[in-house]
Amino acid sequence: MNTTAHDDVLALTRELIARRSVTPEDAGCQALIARRLLAADFRCEHLRFGDVDNLWAVHGGEGPTLVLLGHTDVVPSGPREAWGSDPFVPDIRDGVLYGRGAADMKGSVAAFVIALERFVAAHPDHPGRVALLLTSDEEGDAVDGVRKVADVFRKRGERLDWCITGEPSSTSKLGDLLRVGRRGTLSATLTVHGVQGHVAYPEKARNPIHQAMPALSELAARRWDGGYETFPPTSLQISNIHAGTGANNVIPGELQVLFNLRFNPNWRAEQLERECEDVLHRHGLEYQVRWHRGGEPFYTPEGPLRATARAVLGAHAGAAPEESTGGGTSDARFIAPLGAQCIEIGPVNASIHKVDEHVSVADLQALPALYQSLIERMLLA
Amino acid sequence: MNTTAHDDVLALTRELIARRSVTPEDAGCQALIARRLLAADFRCEHLRFGDVDNLWAVHGGEGPTLVLLGHTDVVPSGPREAWGSDPFVPDIRDGVLYGRGAADMKGSVAAFVIALERFVAAHPDHPGRVALLLTSDEEGDAVDGVRKVADVFRKRGERLDWCITGEPSSTSKLGDLLRVGRRGTLSATLTVHGVQGHVAYPEKARNPIHQAMPALSELAARRWDGGYETFPPTSLQISNIHAGTGANNVIPGELQVLFNLRFNPNWRAEQLERECEDVLHRHGLEYQVRWHRGGEPFYTPEGPLRATARAVLGAHAGAAPEESTGGGTSDARFIAPLGAQCIEIGPVNASIHKVDEHVSVADLQALPALYQSLIERMLLA
Ligand SMILES: [Zn+2]
Ligand SMILES: [Zn+2]
Repeated sequence: MNTTAHDDVLALTRELIARRSVTPEDAGCQALIARRLLAADFRCEHLRFGDVDNLWAVHGGEGPTLVLLGHTDVVPSGPREAWGSDPFVPDIRDGVLYGRGAADMKGSVAAFVIALERFVAAHPDHPGRVALLLTSDEEGDAVDGVRKVADVFRKRGERLDWCITGEPSSTSKLGDLLRVGRRGTLSATLTVHGVQGHVAYPEKARNPIHQAMPALSELAARRWDGGYETFPPTSLQISNIHAGTGANNVIPGELQVLFNLRFNPNWRAEQLERECEDVLHRHGLEYQVRWHRGGEPFYTPEGPLRATARAVLGAHAGAAPEESTGGGTSDARFIAPLGAQCIEIGPVNASIHKVDEHVSVADLQALPALYQSLIERMLLA
Repeated sequence: MNTTAHDDVLALTRELIARRSVTPEDAGCQALIARRLLAADFRCEHLRFGDVDNLWAVHGGEGPTLVLLGHTDVVPSGPREAWGSDPFVPDIRDGVLYGRGAADMKGSVAAFVIALERFVAAHPDHPGRVALLLTSDEEGDAVDGVRKVADVFRKRGERLDWCITGEPSSTSKLGDLLRVGRRGTLSATLTVHGVQGHVAYPEKARNPIHQAMPALSELAARRWDGGYETFPPTSLQISNIHAGTGANNVIPGELQVLFNLRFNPNWRAEQLERECEDVLHRHGLEYQVRWHRGGEPFYTPEGPLRATARAVLGAHAGAAPEESTGGGTSDARFIAPLGAQCIEIGPVNASIHKVDEHVSVADLQALPALYQSLIERMLLA
């Protein structure tokens, strides 16, 4: 790694942070990146769905395809005053770069671009294909982003073998964790119907809160599994519960509940839906439930990609990384079903989605070489 | 009863309905009534607290005091289109008078006024005192209404022996039910504290919904008592429950719950508060609860007032009334603690607080004679 690459990734990250790409806005990030990759002989395709920009940039011909997967959108910054510096004006203090998206994940995206430029410059006739896929809808609804792109890929039979997502996976130092899978996510919007009435006449009403509580208690208390291979246990959390209009003398007619399941590959979404509805049914509730399948779980077992990533991270960090399937979900859930092995490697995630989001300048400068090394080992081996 | 009295109560009820006295507005109802009672030699006192008008009108000297208790405020009408005629334009169709307050309780208030005028005209030097107490804050917060007036009465040692509230007590025909007590009401505003977090990391959060449900289930399922003398059982109802801001991936940090107890004289409010807090405590909740004691229960056992009312209603309806302590609460809860025997007698309550509120013209025309007869039997006996 030389000084130029160090300056280059820092400069590009700063340019990306300065663009206010609050989800689902891209704010010109992808156009900027496409111009650079076009100059490096990539074929670029813009796939716009609804308000969402997606960029697909490919270099190379036939053969195994390695995709770098990222997003240009960021979560809102919250009030400017809460930050030590303007969240959309990149600022370096004491060797740390501050700004919304610094860690999640404009730093990784900039490092992807530098790594791709240097790889194709060094190996213009490399075997296989190397590609970059970006969306501006990872932090939002995730409907018109990689989900839709994956549909397009499925239709045209796009070949994808390996996928490296740049999500900030590291916990305390760069490379200390390798993400090799994610739990699935399943959401329910539940309405429990009762009969409205006056609190003084409970015998004429049917209180949906009273009726639902035993069923909800059972769902919340259930031990779904004890974990599965390297996955944490499946978990159900009630995130929202609402009934009543404020009046303390009215028994409400309806209860609204949102709950979410994070599940390991021990389950499929439809099994969980059936189990939950069995509980609601058994408690005699009059209810409606709308399910939203946010994504099935994915898992990349031992194999060339995982072994290579372990070696590259271990060489950088001085110790083998933890290999984990914890945490939330990521766009890799849409790529994994296409048959690709998926892993996630990115900077330290302690400050993401918070005020004063930041990335260590040293970590940021180390990233392009890490990604370039992974590409070389996978495609040139 | 002659035709004049029949016309009189109908005319006054119509004048009151035409005044838009949506709680806590009085809209001139009490001034109108005060003018009439001043002309009948009553002493009138206006007691205004905050936005609330209260009228205290008395006739007579020393001795036992019989109070007629009512309110001039009404609940909101809801949209005009939902009504068959304008809720604030009294309209008679097929022998029924329609308008907001027709049954609850401008009809009773008008009948009170006619009964008082005729009683003092016939017995100008009657023994004891006869009085009218009106508020414009029965349907609202009930803070600056009869509650405050009762404080004034307590301070100056006002003597009150018997109280007849005009609340619509009848169920299917006028006089079929005599209210001889009311349950107490106690409200709780409960906040359960948890620790906010992401649904993917339940081990780092503490879900206040999950924590509270077993405790709330226990409170809701509890059988407090099987009823007490002529009272219905004590009942707890959760009227409002709220947690979460809509996002389905966030475990909320707090749960807000409102619940209400209606309780018979088997309990005092402070005992119920202690029992509820014991349950919350036993389940290990981190919580705050704010109690609002809406009123202790009251009960008028067998005695002269109850016996007289039974006779008068029985003579009118052709059968002895049901004697009940059911239903909500009323301003009598503030008068009973002053040592007065309290009963409630009024028109059929099927349409109160609903669209097309109404009272039968025949029932309305019968009311002044009923009230006058009660006054005569109690004061002239
Ligand atoms: Zn991200
Ligand atoms: Zn009323």
